[in-house]
Amino acid sequence: MTPIPIDDPADPRLAAYTRMRERDLVGREGRFIAEGEVVLRVLLSGSARFRVESVLVSPERLPGLERALAHLDAPVYLASKAVMGAVAGFPIHRGVLAVGLRGPEPAPDALVPAGPALLLGLVGLANHDNVGGIFRNAAAFGADAVLLDSETCDPLYRKAIRVSAGTSLTVPFARVPTGDELLALCERCALTPVALSPRGEDITTLPPLPRALLLLGTEGPGLPEAMMARARRVAIPMAPGVDSLNVAVAGAVALHRLGGGRVAAG
Amino acid sequence: MTPIPIDDPADPRLAAYTRMRERDLVGREGRFIAEGEVVLRVLLSGSARFRVESVLVSPERLPGLERALAHLDAPVYLASKAVMGAVAGFPIHRGVLAVGLRGPEPAPDALVPAGPALLLGLVGLANHDNVGGIFRNAAAFGADAVLLDSETCDPLYRKAIRVSAGTSLTVPFARVPTGDELLALCERCALTPVALSPRGEDITTLPPLPRALLLLGTEGPGLPEAMMARARRVAIPMAPGVDSLNVAVAGAVALHRLGGGRVAAG
Repeated sequence: MTPIPIDDPADPRLAAYTRMRERDLVGREGRFIAEGEVVLRVLLSGSARFRVESVLVSPERLPGLERALAHLDAPVYLASKAVMGAVAGFPIHRGVLAVGLRGPEPAPDALVPAGPALLLGLVGLANHDNVGGIFRNAAAFGADAVLLDSETCDPLYRKAIRVSAGTSLTVPFARVPTGDELLALCERCALTPVALSPRGEDITTLPPLPRALLLLGTEGPGLPEAMMARARRVAIPMAPGVDSLNVAVAGAVALHRLGGGRVAAG
Repeated sequence: MTPIPIDDPADPRLAAYTRMRERDLVGREGRFIAEGEVVLRVLLSGSARFRVESVLVSPERLPGLERALAHLDAPVYLASKAVMGAVAGFPIHRGVLAVGLRGPEPAPDALVPAGPALLLGLVGLANHDNVGGIFRNAAAFGADAVLLDSETCDPLYRKAIRVSAGTSLTVPFARVPTGDELLALCERCALTPVALSPRGEDITTLPPLPRALLLLGTEGPGLPEAMMARARRVAIPMAPGVDSLNVAVAGAVALHRLGGGRVAAG
């Protein structure tokens, strides 16, 4: 790996890094931006799906990353933070960026393991912090995969990857068109669809569910009633008068309970 | 309640609402800003500690709030969203603001109940989203109070109140100077200090702790080692290779476990 110094913010080799925030909104045709050292290291640690197209780092950050970048088969551009900021359109305090290639999305059914299975199904989640947080929790509690309906926002959005601590690059995910299609997949794959509801059975006394898909709906309205009716409804015990938790937090408590023996204390 | 129309952003009666973001950073001498209808309703629903100094709403929002404001013993100012934005210094999309009075802070020991007790102790938490989220979780899982060291940020900061869904106005809290003082309080009040550590005992098989204070430290470094050594260390089981959860999420799972019989499923 020989870093390539670039001084000119208009250099065409940095085109994928330009006007970053505007392009966050419209998508990047098969690419995504990885930001910060934690996320870059996850991306470099390799996945069958994602590849690095290029890396852009400031000179201060290069020494700490040299070993991690040593065997990378993609260009590493070196630019001052001032040039990085001029390219991106806002200050890049961390001095570490990369462009990743999304690769082909797996078929949803291919992500359902034989035997014990715990998946997440996200329906209409429009908040990147929540989606990123849910991936981080899915990784921590050993979920097999995350399935997202078409209304749910992109887990490879820059901020979602960052909030996920890079786990949206490691937890397998795929899109399904609708929440109903998630329920159809549960039938096909013999998964119990589980929904959180204050009027469900107490999750603390729930018998183990060896094959489950935990459905999480938009904050506020939650899951559509018609989906709720077709799922096994479970409740996280809460204090009187409190009607909800943040969706990522509720999902974490449910994954912790549903995961049971999947993960072990150190 | 007779609303008082105001057209002039420079009207001295709106002084407490001016330059809102700049003053978020320096504090408001005994006051705080409540933003949005959810938070305003919590504030109006009454607490021994907090009082409303004034309310500022846009004409569109008044009809929906009239009943809630009917018995308020404080002025309700009525201004267009344009005037509200000019006063605050940024657009007030929700059209609902209030100034609250902080009231006297309780003594930390006074917040420890006799009998069963579950408190939170926050050490060096500098992120308002996390502190707000922790209050929301404390309310959901029936914690008695939150104690904050002097490094932890203000739960009455505008954004922290909003993320807490108003619960930083309902869950009692007090400051202690340092984390060591939290441990001293645990000794005085016969509370078991509990800390989360990947090398602790498995929280899923922990015997009930009738009187506990859950310590949560800064994301990244976590609790200082010296505090960790004096606490009962418990682990949330996680997948291999995953070393942490977001601090508010980890706290929620721990409160769910430690809370045990405090709260009930619907």
